[in-house]
Amino acid sequence: MHSLADFGSLSDSFRKNLINSITGFKSVTLIGTKSTEGKTNLAIFSQVIHIGANPPLIGVLFRPHVVPRHTLENILATQQFTINHIHESQITAAHHTSARWDTSEFEACGFTAQFRDDLLAPFVAESPIKIGLKMVEKVDIQANGTHLIIGEIQCIMTNENVIGTDGFVNLEAAGIVTCSGLDSYHTTNKVTRLSYAKPDHPPYAIG
Amino acid sequence: MHSLADFGSLSDSFRKNLINSITGFKSVTLIGTKSTEGKTNLAIFSQVIHIGANPPLIGVLFRPHVVPRHTLENILATQQFTINHIHESQITAAHHTSARWDTSEFEACGFTAQFRDDLLAPFVAESPIKIGLKMVEKVDIQANGTHLIIGEIQCIMTNENVIGTDGFVNLEAAGIVTCSGLDSYHTTNKVTRLSYAKPDHPPYAIG
Repeated sequence: MHSLADFGSLSDSFRKNLINSITGFKSVTLIGTKSTEGKTNLAIFSQVIHIGANPPLIGVLFRPHVVPRHTLENILATQQFTINHIHESQITAAHHTSARWDTSEFEACGFTAQFRDDLLAPFVAESPIKIGLKMVEKVDIQANGTHLIIGEIQCIMTNENVIGTDGFVNLEAAGIVTCSGLDSYHTTNKVTRLSYAKPDHPPYAIG
Repeated sequence: MHSLADFGSLSDSFRKNLINSITGFKSVTLIGTKSTEGKTNLAIFSQVIHIGANPPLIGVLFRPHVVPRHTLENILATQQFTINHIHESQITAAHHTSARWDTSEFEACGFTAQFRDDLLAPFVAESPIKIGLKMVEKVDIQANGTHLIIGEIQCIMTNENVIGTDGFVNLEAAGIVTCSGLDSYHTTNKVTRLSYAKPDHPPYAIG
């Protein structure tokens, strides 16, 4: 078994790849925002976490706000953002949003901004699963100066048949990808859904 | 396109499945802890997030501490925990740790506790990728009373060849699973790794 303990001695690039991938497979989505001047922005993020179901809350972690960060600034200014899942066919275009663009990433990367009457932030029209959110809390993490922005879900838009009768979102059937590290994209194969666990018998397949 | 906006009118069970799965594929791991009385605990978690690479930090979200939560209590008491990835062959046993056990989940679910001299918390011997952490911060989230525990990585243990020459952890080659929602487990198929994105050309495959 291979063991690593002295992280200070690693090169920046090695450590960045290692620590970004060691936490496991991640959600990877496009976050849509609009500045107060009306310019749309679209950026790929993999630090998204479920915070709670009632009220429906999602958290997004942002790097320290010591250089311009348009997505974070737009959210702080407008309190609104969208989270848009990425279909397998959209991986390259989605990854390209992370380049330093002068124009809106929507046009630059070939996505269409879609709007709803009740939200200022743009959705990605081509995304199979779109979530509209309003910011409810900003948590500053002392340990490294990052910021956890918590949004309350206002609306969810999906292609038909993506949400099951029990509420489960079939990401795999919708062609949604997962990522690992900074740059690796993967599709999935369902192994099993398991029953609610009880001590008196092993969990069994429910789907 | 299907649209949902009134989350208050949904049944608790439907909303729980919906909101837990809408954020996308997640890391799913076993967290090992030990009480001050010396009893080991092992529990499956899917709310784990990368916080930063330098120092190497990982966050774990815990439900409100209004009922006994052994993992959270053990971390607060000892400041130590381990995160152990789950191999495809371990899905059912790992899911079973979420039942209400009186005995240690290690024995109850067939995992072996493994120790290092420099950490009190137990690792899962059978896990292909194990991470030892010390708690550095507890962040309370006002919006719903949850707690984000941030740990600094002390050591990483993996099977040979899991970490590439650039630091990238090949979770897929190690047989690590991802999950969606509360109960769905998936293996992955790599589509591509993409180059650092620049405006003047589309990203290209690097592996």
